[in-house]
Amino acid sequence: MAEEEKRMTEKLLCGVDLGGTKLSVGLFTRSGESVAENKVTDHSELGNDGMVGRIADLVKELLEREGVGYSDIEGVGIGLAGHINAREGLIITTSNFPSPFRNYRFRDRLREHLETRIIVDNDANAQALGEYRFGAGQGRNDVVFMTVSTGVGAGVIVDGRLVRGHSGFAGEIGHTIVEPSSSIQCTCGNYGCLMALSGTISLTDRYRKYQDQGMKSILDEAEISAIDGMILEKGLHAGDEISRRLFTESAGYIGIGIYNMYQFINPQMVILGGGLMKLGEEFLGLIRDKFESMVQNMVHEELQIVTAGLGNRAGLIGAAALTLESP
Amino acid sequence: MAEEEKRMTEKLLCGVDLGGTKLSVGLFTRSGESVAENKVTDHSELGNDGMVGRIADLVKELLEREGVGYSDIEGVGIGLAGHINAREGLIITTSNFPSPFRNYRFRDRLREHLETRIIVDNDANAQALGEYRFGAGQGRNDVVFMTVSTGVGAGVIVDGRLVRGHSGFAGEIGHTIVEPSSSIQCTCGNYGCLMALSGTISLTDRYRKYQDQGMKSILDEAEISAIDGMILEKGLHAGDEISRRLFTESAGYIGIGIYNMYQFINPQMVILGGGLMKLGEEFLGLIRDKFESMVQNMVHEELQIVTAGLGNRAGLIGAAALTLESP
Repeated sequence: MAEEEKRMTEKLLCGVDLGGTKLSVGLFTRSGESVAENKVTDHSELGNDGMVGRIADLVKELLEREGVGYSDIEGVGIGLAGHINAREGLIITTSNFPSPFRNYRFRDRLREHLETRIIVDNDANAQALGEYRFGAGQGRNDVVFMTVSTGVGAGVIVDGRLVRGHSGFAGEIGHTIVEPSSSIQCTCGNYGCLMALSGTISLTDRYRKYQDQGMKSILDEAEISAIDGMILEKGLHAGDEISRRLFTESAGYIGIGIYNMYQFINPQMVILGGGLMKLGEEFLGLIRDKFESMVQNMVHEELQIVTAGLGNRAGLIGAAALTLESP
Repeated sequence: MAEEEKRMTEKLLCGVDLGGTKLSVGLFTRSGESVAENKVTDHSELGNDGMVGRIADLVKELLEREGVGYSDIEGVGIGLAGHINAREGLIITTSNFPSPFRNYRFRDRLREHLETRIIVDNDANAQALGEYRFGAGQGRNDVVFMTVSTGVGAGVIVDGRLVRGHSGFAGEIGHTIVEPSSSIQCTCGNYGCLMALSGTISLTDRYRKYQDQGMKSILDEAEISAIDGMILEKGLHAGDEISRRLFTESAGYIGIGIYNMYQFINPQMVILGGGLMKLGEEFLGLIRDKFESMVQNMVHEELQIVTAGLGNRAGLIGAAALTLESP
């Protein structure tokens, strides 16, 4: 028994971070240390089956190079952006590949190439697991990872377990409604979704709304029509008052999103990641201020609101950690 | 082993529903059938220790009357309205007793009287468990029970387990913010909480807001200043246009609350209970309509939105079911 337990403990974790521009494969110890990694950028045009084949080849190459057999790994975990039913290994939709996956039995297809346990899940869940096991969330049982970027999403860990939900798409905090009377429409069609009011996806619409109200802009039209986190930051530094307003407003809505999660599932820590968090300490401070202003004296134990510890490596390490979960 | 398992299976569950006006004690089989029950209304003035003593006496009486020993029960579960840390058996606050409990070690005190396992939790959690195990939620793993009454609260079951959260107060959906620009202030001090916009607690403020906007009322001042679900219903039947507006508005916000939960934790079923649900099928229909209008084509598997199956017995049966949970 002790022998078997030891062998189990020594098994490695293999992770795949399948992004729109980058496909990374990594081999990790159970404590999250990197053993070997590989990365390519030639996958995105391959189509569904081709991409599965490319992943399989990369995994096999890495295992061979390191002299690691199937019996030496827990399995292969894959994280990608999309609606995914992890229980069935099914990709329902993706939006960042030229040939989107649609109701694609990803796990079964990959199994035709790799003789090991395979788990596929969305990238926010993978990142949440990575941060929970090896990053900012270590040692805590109730943790939410929230990514704030073009859109807004979350991976939710309750009592040490990833919450996947009945259909597998739990964590879509970006589509919770936080301002139903808002004039800003989300890509989903609804008004006042958290992601439309705090992600970069609607920055142009939000910017124009303030222009229409008569606020002056010092950004040019090309910048406004393509405004993202970097252009917003440029506007802030240049003293653009609309950029300042959007900066404060985004932080405020993220604070509301965190507060709503706090009331609903009462986590110990919320870990913030994603491109918009590069706006830095002042942005994080505004988020915390908004949260504190709402929580008032209701707090029994302080909610920790922190930035991600693993940076953009959380996705790959977390994908590997998926192999330690039951889907 | 089979012998022991059989004995375990046959153990009874003892539950206590500690309300502001009614204290109920019940003995149930593991399948939720009532074996014996008792109810008193003389407890509310007894003070903290006195109330614990009264509960202990009632439990002992019931066990003796039924010839049931401590070894024949799983334990005693107690549900009450308040902020409760179930893990520590600690009542942080209550608001429906003349002598409120404040940081009171309820479990430890009751253990001085009863030689059995004791679990204390808030009433929404108990009701959620009751409905999950024996009511509308039977056979489902991801269920939210939402009570809509004076306030709004929830008990959340994820993957077959009650979500208590880090400090034990998960489920406070009533305090999630769904309209930050609202002029309606909640008792917590914030504006636009779900409970302020859908519970009966702010009906008077909401009614007056529409009067101020020039809408005509056919309720009298005494009714408006004390408006609750029953007066609202009276207004509806009498053709009062503000009552109609509040009816639709409340249903809409409950629909938003359900939609937000759906995006965040993706349950299979939301079970609605509480006094306001007595407004009936039209009210439930408006809630479902609002949900459907937002979920659009995003639905992968239909969320079931139903009314509670056990009615006001969910609290007592659910309290008994607390003894089957690890706190």
